[in-house]
Amino acid sequence: MKIRYYNAKIMTMADEACSISEGELHTENDRIVYVGEAVEGGTFDKEINVNGNLLMPGFKNAHTHTAMTFLRSYADDLPLQEWLYNRVFPMEAKLTPERVYWLSKLGIMEYLTSGITANFDMYMKTDAIAEASIDCGFRTVLCDSINNFGGTVEQMEKDYDKFSSINSLISYHLGFHAEYTTSMEIMKELSELANRRKLPVFVHNSETKSEVEGCKERYGMTPTELLDSIGMYNYGGGGYHCVHMSEKDFEIFKNRGLYAVTNPASNLKLASGIAPVCTYLEKGIPVAIGTDGPASNNCLDMFREMFLVTGLQKVSREDAAACDALEVLRMATVNGARSMCLYDCDTLEVGKKADFIEIDLNQPNMQPMNNIAKNIVYAGSKQNVKRTVVDGKILYDSGNFYIGDSPETIYKKANEIISEMK
Amino acid sequence: MKIRYYNAKIMTMADEACSISEGELHTENDRIVYVGEAVEGGTFDKEINVNGNLLMPGFKNAHTHTAMTFLRSYADDLPLQEWLYNRVFPMEAKLTPERVYWLSKLGIMEYLTSGITANFDMYMKTDAIAEASIDCGFRTVLCDSINNFGGTVEQMEKDYDKFSSINSLISYHLGFHAEYTTSMEIMKELSELANRRKLPVFVHNSETKSEVEGCKERYGMTPTELLDSIGMYNYGGGGYHCVHMSEKDFEIFKNRGLYAVTNPASNLKLASGIAPVCTYLEKGIPVAIGTDGPASNNCLDMFREMFLVTGLQKVSREDAAACDALEVLRMATVNGARSMCLYDCDTLEVGKKADFIEIDLNQPNMQPMNNIAKNIVYAGSKQNVKRTVVDGKILYDSGNFYIGDSPETIYKKANEIISEMK
Repeated sequence: MKIRYYNAKIMTMADEACSISEGELHTENDRIVYVGEAVEGGTFDKEINVNGNLLMPGFKNAHTHTAMTFLRSYADDLPLQEWLYNRVFPMEAKLTPERVYWLSKLGIMEYLTSGITANFDMYMKTDAIAEASIDCGFRTVLCDSINNFGGTVEQMEKDYDKFSSINSLISYHLGFHAEYTTSMEIMKELSELANRRKLPVFVHNSETKSEVEGCKERYGMTPTELLDSIGMYNYGGGGYHCVHMSEKDFEIFKNRGLYAVTNPASNLKLASGIAPVCTYLEKGIPVAIGTDGPASNNCLDMFREMFLVTGLQKVSREDAAACDALEVLRMATVNGARSMCLYDCDTLEVGKKADFIEIDLNQPNMQPMNNIAKNIVYAGSKQNVKRTVVDGKILYDSGNFYIGDSPETIYKKANEIISEMK
Repeated sequence: MKIRYYNAKIMTMADEACSISEGELHTENDRIVYVGEAVEGGTFDKEINVNGNLLMPGFKNAHTHTAMTFLRSYADDLPLQEWLYNRVFPMEAKLTPERVYWLSKLGIMEYLTSGITANFDMYMKTDAIAEASIDCGFRTVLCDSINNFGGTVEQMEKDYDKFSSINSLISYHLGFHAEYTTSMEIMKELSELANRRKLPVFVHNSETKSEVEGCKERYGMTPTELLDSIGMYNYGGGGYHCVHMSEKDFEIFKNRGLYAVTNPASNLKLASGIAPVCTYLEKGIPVAIGTDGPASNNCLDMFREMFLVTGLQKVSREDAAACDALEVLRMATVNGARSMCLYDCDTLEVGKKADFIEIDLNQPNMQPMNNIAKNIVYAGSKQNVKRTVVDGKILYDSGNFYIGDSPETIYKKANEIISEMK
């Protein structure tokens, strides 16, 4: 299947300046086979006039719990502990693989409306998650979430091998929920696995002040120091949230090449704090962006996250020049892809995966066209996502979904599930 | 012209709980003539099946500079002073009434996509702004912006009388730019006018720390104290931004019945600070929400503002329960309308103006339907605005605009204007 997207503006994200040129992009099956100036001739199965809109790499949601769609706006405006222990955990206990399958599909629909072409999904019932993604044609990087309440390192290794070869849309990373929910015994066993297989590890890290304080009380070290001290980060990986960090933590992130995945909407809504994104940039630590799960956000919208990343740095640093929008655009695309080890989904270049989006510039919030790249960060919204392409397939186009099931079926299932569970 | 909107969920915003019922809404010309349960019979010029979507009052953008669309993403990531003095002011000097007309229309288009049915517009060339709104069928409350560089109080009084009777879509309030740009002579003259005509006054107030410090140096008082001391607030009004406020300022706002209009996205982007919204609520000071102008935001999106209002309170108070979403929904609708003295545009009740929106619930970010009202604040986006009705007329429906000119014409004009001015 060879498709030509012509009459386009193209931001490949292959250069630091996020430059934009006019031309066209061709895909063959799952890959990009041409990006450049307009060309004459050639045979295509389909030719799509992009009408001067922008093609750019899809956003990468570098930390989420997709199937938590069922708890969206189920319990808001509550203190964190009450929300988590009285509302979230009892409901999660009722999840089944079938429920996770449908709830994941609902989340994937929302990703597509927000121009997200891959998610880094840390949640339970991984078989069901993978099945949902494969059935939709969506790209998912699974992350294990073992903790004291479920999972074994032995099973994680099996899952790693299984999901690494199950389908080209699926990959898998070692991970665990968090230091405060996981025993030293499990963490050491996981570190041994990471070192034996030379693999990166991902984990919730320093999301809240109390998490860091608790870890210091338990071990006399911050979570980052503790994990590094047991060799967990010898082959890289990263932390989700990374809000409350010490100087030594920054050093470890820098030296180990770890990714800090920031989740600003969730950090606001759960009152966790503002991540030191500018400090990461100054120290050369790569930052990616995640939405976190829809129970704590409550939506899956990379545009909102991007504005927050820069806006919160500007206000907390009292500097309107802090955290340039182009840096943020790279976090949401290139860095996100690399944090998830999706090295062939980061830019629009020949040979890369055809994971890209069409941004509708013919909307009032994109006019006049003073600076398209910055405008995406400062003024963009889901309304500007005209088309979302994953692995060469158009999954979302002008408000319509091409993911197998109809939206009505998925909404009906989601509402049935939540009413059964309440 | 009598229109029936049936098969609807309706949130009238007439009750504190933001309750939602099923039924229908009828309009006759510019007014709501029925809201309630489904009814049989009746003759209508048009019957619209809302398909179970939500009807609610339109959002009110209680502070903006609409025509600044031309500077959207023109100069970002710069220190505030450089941005304002080297980039904004020189460009504004080139504005003409015709340019303001087209640039206002572009802003109105964006309002419609965000479910905003009225704006409180402080900008120059007010005749052109009013003309643009009338031609589009949009509701605009003009606010004077006199300062040392332009305008006279004498002209303001004439404008007040003119725009108060020019068209039912247009109204006018006394106002001035800010204490730091306006001489005591002008402020006293304006206060005299406000007292003589018994009118409220609106002004940028305590947006930045340096503004407050400067005022204290000049007069030994905060801006709020100063204005109150010369009787400016004797007949009410309000302040835009209101970020850096003293205990005494709060007292004055409370005693004078002033509105605090918060502009969170602009306050982040320009690094001005986080407004003490919870304190306003605790003290019983009414809060409304504005986008500020598109040069400092850079978009006109009430959904982003609503999330920021609550999210920034939660994080700055370190309390996930702070600033309940339903409070925010009232700020964006009922309070906004009342701050602009649009007392018949605040709720969906018989006799009120037909200024309302249809929120598309059949989108993934609105599913499952655990709590529709809270979900609008936490997960809503422009993508959910299906239909925007102002003064009984459908101005925006399913991505199409019904405002006279085509989007292409308006975009072309806006791009021509900025290229002529650069």
